Amino acid sequence: MLPGLFIHHSGTANFYYATRIKVESALHLYGNDINMLIVPDMEKERAIKESCVKEVVSYSEIGYHERLKEFRDSKKALVESLKCYLKQLKTDKILIPHNFPAYLAFGLSKAFEVEIVENPFSKLRAVKRKEEIAKIRETCSAILEAFEFLKGIVRKGKKCEELRNAVELFLFERGFLAEDTILASGKLTAFPHFKGEGDVEEHVVVDIFPKSRTHGYYGDFTRTILIEPEKEIEEMLEAVIEAKQKGIEVIREGVKARDVHGTVCDVLESYGYKTLRSKSSEGFIHSTGHGVGLEVHEEPRIFENDDVLKAGMVFTVEPGLYYLKWGGVRVEDTVVVTKRGCEVLTPYPDRVRL
Amino acid sequence: MLPGLFIHHSGTANFYYATRIKVESALHLYGNDINMLIVPDMEKERAIKESCVKEVVSYSEIGYHERLKEFRDSKKALVESLKCYLKQLKTDKILIPHNFPAYLAFGLSKAFEVEIVENPFSKLRAVKRKEEIAKIRETCSAILEAFEFLKGIVRKGKKCEELRNAVELFLFERGFLAEDTILASGKLTAFPHFKGEGDVEEHVVVDIFPKSRTHGYYGDFTRTILIEPEKEIEEMLEAVIEAKQKGIEVIREGVKARDVHGTVCDVLESYGYKTLRSKSSEGFIHSTGHGVGLEVHEEPRIFENDDVLKAGMVFTVEPGLYYLKWGGVRVEDTVVVTKRGCEVLTPYPDRVRL
Repeated sequence: MLPGLFIHHSGTANFYYATRIKVESALHLYGNDINMLIVPDMEKERAIKESCVKEVVSYSEIGYHERLKEFRDSKKALVESLKCYLKQLKTDKILIPHNFPAYLAFGLSKAFEVEIVENPFSKLRAVKRKEEIAKIRETCSAILEAFEFLKGIVRKGKKCEELRNAVELFLFERGFLAEDTILASGKLTAFPHFKGEGDVEEHVVVDIFPKSRTHGYYGDFTRTILIEPEKEIEEMLEAVIEAKQKGIEVIREGVKARDVHGTVCDVLESYGYKTLRSKSSEGFIHSTGHGVGLEVHEEPRIFENDDVLKAGMVFTVEPGLYYLKWGGVRVEDTVVVTKRGCEVLTPYPDRVRL
Repeated sequence: MLPGLFIHHSGTANFYYATRIKVESALHLYGNDINMLIVPDMEKERAIKESCVKEVVSYSEIGYHERLKEFRDSKKALVESLKCYLKQLKTDKILIPHNFPAYLAFGLSKAFEVEIVENPFSKLRAVKRKEEIAKIRETCSAILEAFEFLKGIVRKGKKCEELRNAVELFLFERGFLAEDTILASGKLTAFPHFKGEGDVEEHVVVDIFPKSRTHGYYGDFTRTILIEPEKEIEEMLEAVIEAKQKGIEVIREGVKARDVHGTVCDVLESYGYKTLRSKSSEGFIHSTGHGVGLEVHEEPRIFENDDVLKAGMVFTVEPGLYYLKWGGVRVEDTVVVTKRGCEVLTPYPDRVRL
């Protein structure tokens, strides 16, 4: 039971999850026995047909167009008509998510008590239903096929851009959309999110995170391919592989996110690498993982937070090490939490050498 | 000169336009002799390398991590460290865009005068530079090739889903990403944004709006293909074609958006069709067009607004008519405004019949 009327806006995964419709400039009202969409007039009929929210109100029906004539400002018109409409609903307290547009937040706060809350759909989304896990599994299988395909064509001296394109096309043909796939080589792999360009050198970091073009669920997977690696890179990779494996071993329902992250850091530090625990700007400089679903980065975060893992949560375990002098390495699996452990949705050998 | 320090957040086309980097959880500070990025620590080096903004400050450098330890809440930690950092910059007035996240807006408003303003980069983006027009032209050419390809395979009884997939694959292979391409047939074409499913029937509305996978610029184009159309659909299409042509004829630098929209409505009403001017829920139930660039819907809007057209603006002209009884039709071109007229970037015959 929410302590007020929750309102969020279209264009987010939470909105899509809650309403099952892609539509621009729409709002979803939820709570206090209300479950309602407010949409531009031209979308009303489609919203009734496509959305799982069955009460659909158009901009006209909340008096938007009269106010647009009056103010000649679409944003002000929406704020004023929404304020008036919410008054009719006998709402006192409005709950909004963190990313709610500021102009609506400020506008409503002039007429109501407005409180920012965690989007209730974020928390729902963090624990996947069976059919959602099946969808993520589908995407993960496609990733592994794409990686296998890549392994067959990657060679020293080939261009990262061409290989990325080939992998993304391979996935698209099979119904999956990958954008900004990381296929990076050389010293610049020391930047975790560097996409990669130019020649393939001694080792390649491949991070593939497509979504299904049918159902929209993501998967996420990284392997580091060794070609003629320097000793430091090989050693870093071994530490990262052990950290990932140990991290995965501690995952089960009831464990805290911080304990998974802590295990990963322990392993890396045991080999003398730095982590964020010592505020280092080199070494393991990001979190252990993030939820995967309708977004590639969603709840839960696997870092120094106290979130308790629940069966059905799907997230990545992705330790990496990054040094400007040598470059970076990373391995990453997507896993789903179970009562007694977890299942790896991207089962693939950790060591890949050409 | 901005009357304060403008701050916007990553994840928007404006942020990308202003900074030339794709990065999560970043802020761009602009104005008062400041042009600065604030990014998570792990992104700092990449931001220095990739972004056109050369002053890059990390979360650590604004004291984020101490506050995260203190509050154990990443959002609160960002608000508090940002407040403190902005105080050091001797800022009194903060300007934010409409879509700024509510939690940051509320947080900052406790320490500063905060004003919501039109994002200055939206206005800059509305008028395209030569090289941007070249990029949009490239995407538009690909669209026309894809439409020509589609014309060769569309037949009565084929599935809309299969045809959509074929068109999107055709574009992807050539370096363009189309999602949610509208390929709709039958009575449900009466919903302007219905994607289409099931059999191709008497007429097909095809709305293709891909972006380049290299440079990110969109194009937008619609034609209605007649197969064995009912008389009403043929008549509606003729009116819509004339409305589009007359609309395009009035476009030149100095004309108001509302005059283009007015011309389109005049033509449609002259044939007895309803428009939004009479608040009809059938007929021409949307605006005449929208800007096209790094987003498929951006400034300027071509509706009942007073925006004055400038040379270099790129937008769509897309009248349509929608009746539940008969279905819908639409034709759409992307055009660029010139001193004395406009150039159509999607030159293609208006009448397409199998």
